[in-house]
Amino acid sequence: MSEAYITGVGMTPFGKHPNTTSTELGAMAVIEAMRDSGIDPRQVDAAYCGSVYGGISVGQRVLAQVGMTGLPITNVENACSSGAVALREAFLAVRAGEHDIVLALGVEHLTSKFDGAITPDETDPETVVGLTMSGIYAMRAQRYMHDYGVDHAQLALVSVKNKQNAAKNPLAYFKKPVTVEQVLSSRAIADPLTLLECSPATDGAAAVVVVSARVAAQFRDRRVTLAASTLRSGELETTDSQMSFETLTELTASQAYERAGIGPEDVSVAEVHDCFSIAEVLRVEGAGLFPRGEYLHAVARGDAHIGGRLPINPSGGLLGKGHPLGATGIAQVVELVRQLRGAAGKRQVDGARVGLAHCRGGKTVGVDAAACTVQILVK
Amino acid sequence: MSEAYITGVGMTPFGKHPNTTSTELGAMAVIEAMRDSGIDPRQVDAAYCGSVYGGISVGQRVLAQVGMTGLPITNVENACSSGAVALREAFLAVRAGEHDIVLALGVEHLTSKFDGAITPDETDPETVVGLTMSGIYAMRAQRYMHDYGVDHAQLALVSVKNKQNAAKNPLAYFKKPVTVEQVLSSRAIADPLTLLECSPATDGAAAVVVVSARVAAQFRDRRVTLAASTLRSGELETTDSQMSFETLTELTASQAYERAGIGPEDVSVAEVHDCFSIAEVLRVEGAGLFPRGEYLHAVARGDAHIGGRLPINPSGGLLGKGHPLGATGIAQVVELVRQLRGAAGKRQVDGARVGLAHCRGGKTVGVDAAACTVQILVK
Repeated sequence: MSEAYITGVGMTPFGKHPNTTSTELGAMAVIEAMRDSGIDPRQVDAAYCGSVYGGISVGQRVLAQVGMTGLPITNVENACSSGAVALREAFLAVRAGEHDIVLALGVEHLTSKFDGAITPDETDPETVVGLTMSGIYAMRAQRYMHDYGVDHAQLALVSVKNKQNAAKNPLAYFKKPVTVEQVLSSRAIADPLTLLECSPATDGAAAVVVVSARVAAQFRDRRVTLAASTLRSGELETTDSQMSFETLTELTASQAYERAGIGPEDVSVAEVHDCFSIAEVLRVEGAGLFPRGEYLHAVARGDAHIGGRLPINPSGGLLGKGHPLGATGIAQVVELVRQLRGAAGKRQVDGARVGLAHCRGGKTVGVDAAACTVQILVK
Repeated sequence: MSEAYITGVGMTPFGKHPNTTSTELGAMAVIEAMRDSGIDPRQVDAAYCGSVYGGISVGQRVLAQVGMTGLPITNVENACSSGAVALREAFLAVRAGEHDIVLALGVEHLTSKFDGAITPDETDPETVVGLTMSGIYAMRAQRYMHDYGVDHAQLALVSVKNKQNAAKNPLAYFKKPVTVEQVLSSRAIADPLTLLECSPATDGAAAVVVVSARVAAQFRDRRVTLAASTLRSGELETTDSQMSFETLTELTASQAYERAGIGPEDVSVAEVHDCFSIAEVLRVEGAGLFPRGEYLHAVARGDAHIGGRLPINPSGGLLGKGHPLGATGIAQVVELVRQLRGAAGKRQVDGARVGLAHCRGGKTVGVDAAACTVQILVK
């Protein structure tokens, strides 16, 4: 069994790309990741592509555009964590000793598919009665505010922080910081959540190159270790979902910490699945990065900002960068690799040594979530 | 690294299931495979689900129906080889030492999605001008008949053989044998191919349980070794596709033989991707199971029939059993496991010791195929 390393990363700007197809976006990210890795694309042994709405053989279509044919290519789908799961499969293929150089990519052209909110699985009874993802998260926000005695202005600080980070990220969709007042007065989506507390539908792609120890030996100065990549699906709704605490995140993260041989106290920077403002709160507490009920106070103190004790979503997260489903989980890891390399520009987290990416996707009948992934990267 | 074994198999009848959903079909196959394995479903470490049109989080929806939640579940899509690729991912996860017991399933409810022929990738220039899969294979049939001096009546024998086998398989869609005359006089689809030379759109599901050596040790009498599971995607069209010989199948099979440490002469029974009559010819010759240009003569002699030198598609194949895309690759392996266990009833191949499954899927711009898989099972 070989350790797995990341030696190359690439991503497109996230945003609305009406004149670029998903395969073109994918190709841009792949070309950048391959160049960044310094590895000849002809040496790639296999590829995994994450996408939700990319259509049949999306990975093959992307890679054919850049002349990468004849290798094993597999498409994976796990709702909003599709990209993260593509990376996990690449990790497993390298660890199995099956392949030495594996490309993981994620791609989504969401603006051509949707003109509104994404609903969970259409067979879900809650969906049938009209409960969208924003509705589900609004209920979780209400419950959290009630349980921990915090108000909406405190919750809005998550959006303020992430859009402030995004303004420092040339690839992010949101280009300008916003104030608490702007968040609170933006259009109501599902009480208490407003428009600026919901991640926007965007298009984009991201790619990373995962290699075995043998190959990584040639890239000592720029490689990052992918120390863990764990995945779990949800359990019965009663354990999670409308409840405030994220049991699923806790379980998935525990497994990742154990695998990587570290604890939450070792994490220097994290990208978490902030599809809504409340989602970031639930996930950082679920992963043990901040104590339960404390995160919004930490944000108010600046602890989770770039320059704070533990920066969360320095890339801008889903709220600031955008959320092209299949690309999201890979883009989180692109940011962490840049942070651990000390190459994150204005967003650089000083002394970043351990990065954690958390991604979550879907919801299905009676079950809280289709997938939760936690990846741990070590410099 | 652990060897991988299969200890349980299950599949639904293939056919038209207007009153059963894809998740219900999936659940039926999973329940049967788990019972057959003798393993408690709560001990399953992970699952992979192959489907093309199953929709978001299809694997999670299937497994939630049977109470299997909280484990890592990943959906994979590789066109008509989606199920085969789900099995390959299970194989890799066991070999990586990541998991001990992994479920691979495939599911498709095709009759609710289509009322005609499946087209390749809609961005493909040939598709744009109206070339369906049957059109592509018709061209390959014409070329093969020209190159090797065989006629349509000889080609029709493939359909006759497979529907004869299907008549012995209670799970197959076709229940009755057909004659050469019936094949030749059935409705023309794309010259020379007739309706009875095209695999029918069907619904169905199949599942297998893949385990590590540690777990397999408890099942010495019913386990089968999954000795190889290889995957390649196509290369530029000029190398294959409208040409008669299957370079892609040859390359994928070579890798599988090397991995399993056997040659084509060791294979006792094979299930190959006979989406059209001509497809079986190209694949068995591509995989080296019969010499180039010789297969139709071998079929005429009975060499590829049950009881012949090397039975091909004893289950009935796609032509006899039906072709519910995501389920197909898994169903091939279900048949081989039953053959190697000596539990294939009227279809039993005497002394079956090594089985080969070949599955192929898709087509994309300028590239011959999205995926080709070869799996080798050893008693």
